[in-house]
Amino acid sequence: MKVIVTVLPKTTVLDPQGAATAEAMKHLGLESVRGVRVGKSIQFEAQGADEAKLHEIARDLLSNPVMEDYKLEILP
Amino acid sequence: MKVIVTVLPKTTVLDPQGAATAEAMKHLGLESVRGVRVGKSIQFEAQGADEAKLHEIARDLLSNPVMEDYKLEILP
Repeated sequence: MKVIVTVLPKTTVLDPQGAATAEAMKHLGLESVRGVRVGKSIQFEAQGADEAKLHEIARDLLSNPVMEDYKLEILP
Repeated sequence: MKVIVTVLPKTTVLDPQGAATAEAMKHLGLESVRGVRVGKSIQFEAQGADEAKLHEIARDLLSNPVMEDYKLEILP
């Protein structure tokens, strides 16, 4: 199965990279842009993996729970 | 509308960060992990934005087309 883990800064945490990206988008003509968050996407195959183990890895290895939230998607 | 741009290294390009992440996952007990790719996820709101403009921004600003592929998702 394919696993996609998306890690984004928590909405309560300042995201300077997102703010800089928003400015650059406006300069390129996308005036309506709001709320840009820049995070990570980690994608992999893991045949027969246990969902609890995947959550453990997403929480402990792939994200920093103090600053970031993760979303785990498991595709067949 | 909400826009999600996912930027990943091309499959033909070496991904050392992905290789290191795969090793760490195996050490944490996920033996079956394969093909780890580490990229970026950029998420934002852009009311009434033109899809061609969003593709332009994803290609020219958010990704490096020499090394990376992007996927653009537009949610209502």
